[in-house]
Amino acid sequence: MSSFAVRTDLALEDRERIGGSDGEIRGVILEEVEKEDSGIKVTRVKIETKNGAKLMGKPVGTYITLEAPALTEQDEDYHREVSGELARQLKSVMPDAEKEQSVLVVGLGNRDVTADSLGPSVADNLFVNRHVVMEFGRAAYAKGKMHSISCIVPGVMAKTGMESAEIVHGVVKETKPDFLIAVDALAARSTRRLNRTIQVSDAGIYPGSGVGNHRNALTKESLGVPVIAIGVPTVVDAATIVGDALERMEKESGLKLIAAREHPQAVSELNNMYVTSKDIDETIKRLSFTVSEGINIALNME
Amino acid sequence: MSSFAVRTDLALEDRERIGGSDGEIRGVILEEVEKEDSGIKVTRVKIETKNGAKLMGKPVGTYITLEAPALTEQDEDYHREVSGELARQLKSVMPDAEKEQSVLVVGLGNRDVTADSLGPSVADNLFVNRHVVMEFGRAAYAKGKMHSISCIVPGVMAKTGMESAEIVHGVVKETKPDFLIAVDALAARSTRRLNRTIQVSDAGIYPGSGVGNHRNALTKESLGVPVIAIGVPTVVDAATIVGDALERMEKESGLKLIAAREHPQAVSELNNMYVTSKDIDETIKRLSFTVSEGINIALNME
Amino acid sequence: MSSFAVRTDLALEDRERIGGSDGEIRGVILEEVEKEDSGIKVTRVKIETKNGAKLMGKPVGTYITLEAPALTEQDEDYHREVSGELARQLKSVMPDAEKEQSVLVVGLGNRDVTADSLGPSVADNLFVNRHVVMEFGRAAYAKGKMHSISCIVPGVMAKTGMESAEIVHGVVKETKPDFLIAVDALAARSTRRLNRTIQVSDAGIYPGSGVGNHRNALTKESLGVPVIAIGVPTVVDAATIVGDALERMEKESGLKLIAAREHPQAVSELNNMYVTSKDIDETIKRLSFTVSEGINIALNME
Amino acid sequence: MSSFAVRTDLALEDRERIGGSDGEIRGVILEEVEKEDSGIKVTRVKIETKNGAKLMGKPVGTYITLEAPALTEQDEDYHREVSGELARQLKSVMPDAEKEQSVLVVGLGNRDVTADSLGPSVADNLFVNRHVVMEFGRAAYAKGKMHSISCIVPGVMAKTGMESAEIVHGVVKETKPDFLIAVDALAARSTRRLNRTIQVSDAGIYPGSGVGNHRNALTKESLGVPVIAIGVPTVVDAATIVGDALERMEKESGLKLIAAREHPQAVSELNNMYVTSKDIDETIKRLSFTVSEGINIALNME
Repeated sequence: MSSFAVRTDLALEDRERIGGSDGEIRGVILEEVEKEDSGIKVTRVKIETKNGAKLMGKPVGTYITLEAPALTEQDEDYHREVSGELARQLKSVMPDAEKEQSVLVVGLGNRDVTADSLGPSVADNLFVNRHVVMEFGRAAYAKGKMHSISCIVPGVMAKTGMESAEIVHGVVKETKPDFLIAVDALAARSTRRLNRTIQVSDAGIYPGSGVGNHRNALTKESLGVPVIAIGVPTVVDAATIVGDALERMEKESGLKLIAAREHPQAVSELNNMYVTSKDIDETIKRLSFTVSEGINIALNME
Repeated sequence: MSSFAVRTDLALEDRERIGGSDGEIRGVILEEVEKEDSGIKVTRVKIETKNGAKLMGKPVGTYITLEAPALTEQDEDYHREVSGELARQLKSVMPDAEKEQSVLVVGLGNRDVTADSLGPSVADNLFVNRHVVMEFGRAAYAKGKMHSISCIVPGVMAKTGMESAEIVHGVVKETKPDFLIAVDALAARSTRRLNRTIQVSDAGIYPGSGVGNHRNALTKESLGVPVIAIGVPTVVDAATIVGDALERMEKESGLKLIAAREHPQAVSELNNMYVTSKDIDETIKRLSFTVSEGINIALNME
Repeated sequence: MSSFAVRTDLALEDRERIGGSDGEIRGVILEEVEKEDSGIKVTRVKIETKNGAKLMGKPVGTYITLEAPALTEQDEDYHREVSGELARQLKSVMPDAEKEQSVLVVGLGNRDVTADSLGPSVADNLFVNRHVVMEFGRAAYAKGKMHSISCIVPGVMAKTGMESAEIVHGVVKETKPDFLIAVDALAARSTRRLNRTIQVSDAGIYPGSGVGNHRNALTKESLGVPVIAIGVPTVVDAATIVGDALERMEKESGLKLIAAREHPQAVSELNNMYVTSKDIDETIKRLSFTVSEGINIALNME
Repeated sequence: MSSFAVRTDLALEDRERIGGSDGEIRGVILEEVEKEDSGIKVTRVKIETKNGAKLMGKPVGTYITLEAPALTEQDEDYHREVSGELARQLKSVMPDAEKEQSVLVVGLGNRDVTADSLGPSVADNLFVNRHVVMEFGRAAYAKGKMHSISCIVPGVMAKTGMESAEIVHGVVKETKPDFLIAVDALAARSTRRLNRTIQVSDAGIYPGSGVGNHRNALTKESLGVPVIAIGVPTVVDAATIVGDALERMEKESGLKLIAAREHPQAVSELNNMYVTSKDIDETIKRLSFTVSEGINIALNME
């Protein structure tokens, strides 16, 4: 693409953009499962080869998308159903879900920017017990088996002077969890997907930005333990939304307007800008509760 | 305009859009004063007639704009200079600034949405003394003359079930201030004006939305006392940014692409969406301090 | 009492202190109802005469106390039971609970002081609908009957320059609710009652301090509509806790140590100090959810 | 002492309790310096031997106390003076203050409990630059010499499942700072010292509680780099305040009331309770600004 590069954190949107809805992509497998009763659509994109990863612009791994249109509404029963489905999908990518393990949940993002506060807000509602297990043993809880759960909100570089990933690497070295669950707000390509889509992936996560910055990666390669990422798109990059509108206009008008699309000033103005919804505070409050409940259910061994 | 209506809360942008930079508008007067030492550009738009108000889409009154490009930077001395200039401009529209009066400052907007939290954040740093003056008299302070200052953050309708204006009307009836200062985050047309422009106006304010909803107005007509509005643009409507990009493309390509611009689906997707900057948390922190200092200085009679 | 005056906002504690557990007080009626299944003890103190009010140091009215020892624990089912019981008791003092009415809920206290943030926190989880009812009518909801619910968090005098009561009076004049529910954090005499007791009263409330300051009262007399108060003790005055310890020592030692108890320096040091629990953040989070659910259930007419 | 053990985090209060105002303690040196112009009293307690450490109940090291009575007032000039004095004292214990170093500032405590939020609030106002220095080098700033500054708020165990010290150890291993500055709210013995005393120490800090828990220590021994602790007493333990009142009563009455003082029920009720001031929100806001300014000045090499 040109300077209005279309950025998305959703593998599903990459898949749509590249392959069309029917076309095949070598090294990428797509499965859809419609959940008829709840209306939650679950899609699984598996990137299996390096070639697939290159085409998709995302690392090799499994990317599960839950599309739940009513997530934007205030319906407690529906949110509970989504939490249940999220828990099922989480368990499907957890390493050895039936064995007692220690889990570190990482709430990425910026607590002080509403659209970016999903990770910290999920952390606020999480059940943690590692300190109790450390002091009294698992016997402190009258249960058969249980995981040991800890949680960190690393904050953002402008306030800590450190990459989120540096802080997480340090905490992992010190506390040696068996695997990580990292939660973050994502960028989608289309406003239609905002706040109603949850992506679960076993391919790790790159807080803050693009693939390739290794100091910045939270992956099995960099940390030595598996990393499950949970994300919800809450923003669209401003350049993406304009680029998308221009592309649509080209299609409809049948004209090629490449010069305008690459206009450098128009692009630079939109850098560091994003689009989000006006009721993002209510949205994050509901979504963070739904995601934290999904994690709590998945990590409860009863 | 078409369905991508360009919305701005800045009278200066209306003036640019309508009159061009040279053209005259009947009933609207424009004065510019460049402050050479500080680089703060002060512009004064006076809407004097009903005709001018109709053309501009804004009520009759004076609209002062401070354009201070370095406001987005972390430079304490510069922010102090802007606070001083804001105080001077505030005093120029305050009714009888040399007389002891009671002032109610209103922090409009939503504390839980970062880009909309300017009003509540300004309230946090404001000097208030009405309760001390009520209990001990002005003699409690070792000063010649002083205003009595109170402050309210009415919150947003989704959380209170009431219009901000209803709450303010009630508080005005009960506490009878001599005039109001209302602070709010605004929408600009252009991303270039975001976070570096302050508008001061004596024309009142319409929290939440468009002119005409009288239950919603904070004006001299509805409240019986003067209302000075202070606003800083922190967002651009998503539809505006796309409409603007399309308009620019039309100009550059020399084509008329009206059909595309009125595409109803594209518009409805963008409703209830806005564009803001990624570091809006740091921005609001600095701006709210600068604006509250400006008010504190203007209301200090020493 | 002496200079270490024992202060409590709980009528039940006044009753214990004055009458002993068996003795009668003229003008004050005491009923106890143990709920055997849930372990919630409900007590009803009715102050019926001016004499009773004088003896008790509280206005004429009904004071219902729910004592729920396990409220300090993290047990969702138990909290749900307490919410249900609170809803029942609320309805018992609501004026005409079966008629559609408009209700203003007031969240008193200081959001920025954890132990005093119960009211604002309850407001955060409240269902409000007045704005929807005003715009679309009750038909907007697919229900038989419903109340119209609004909510205000007036804030504290140090930040607004106004008494909470002034703000509430103004909002009541403007929006004319049929009755008020005011929620506040209370002071108990004994640390044993902290965070596990809920008081519901139809006698109004005096935010900030003592009876008699009429500018400060939220009562049927001052507002013209009934006021139901809900309070949870979260603090003990520091002077009370010391006075109580000294009193206990006198009893146990059989000595009168009045001189020490009136020591003026010791008292003045403790003014403006209170005692609270170290995990007050978790406590307020749970309690505010339990109380808001109680109100939501009581105001739901289905 | 008995079960109402008097706890203080201030070495100065230990010194007063043990040695009296005149008496000597072997292994402990006391120096006082009254700053006449500002009214800030600076005291330096040096614990030089193991015997002194045992007597004082605190590790070997230097403890500097700034007593600034007017810190509780809203006087910007005075707070600026205290920041300046704090900066001077900080530099006196910094290792090699004239050499460019990397510093990690740690904001200990609980952001959600007002009286315990000093550390996180100081972090909010801190200048950090490590990420800029890492990316662009020190040349990014037009300065002669500069430190590289990072900052972490580890949060509390109930929310993270980890000791604060575990998180800090991990971050230190990963980012290898030259020394640490740890900021925390402290417990004093006397309410008279609350909110107007700053302690600076080179003896490290034990977040959460008592000496001896090595997993919990932030010291040169455990981390390998020097740790400077800055603390302000904002609470008194509830048991301490009652024990102190009883002790005073014993002295004044000439009686020994040991039985009462050891009353187990009275003590257990007060466990996990603390005493703090009613305006703790305003206090923390001012104090955190004063302390962060002191650190910012001390770490600015110009």
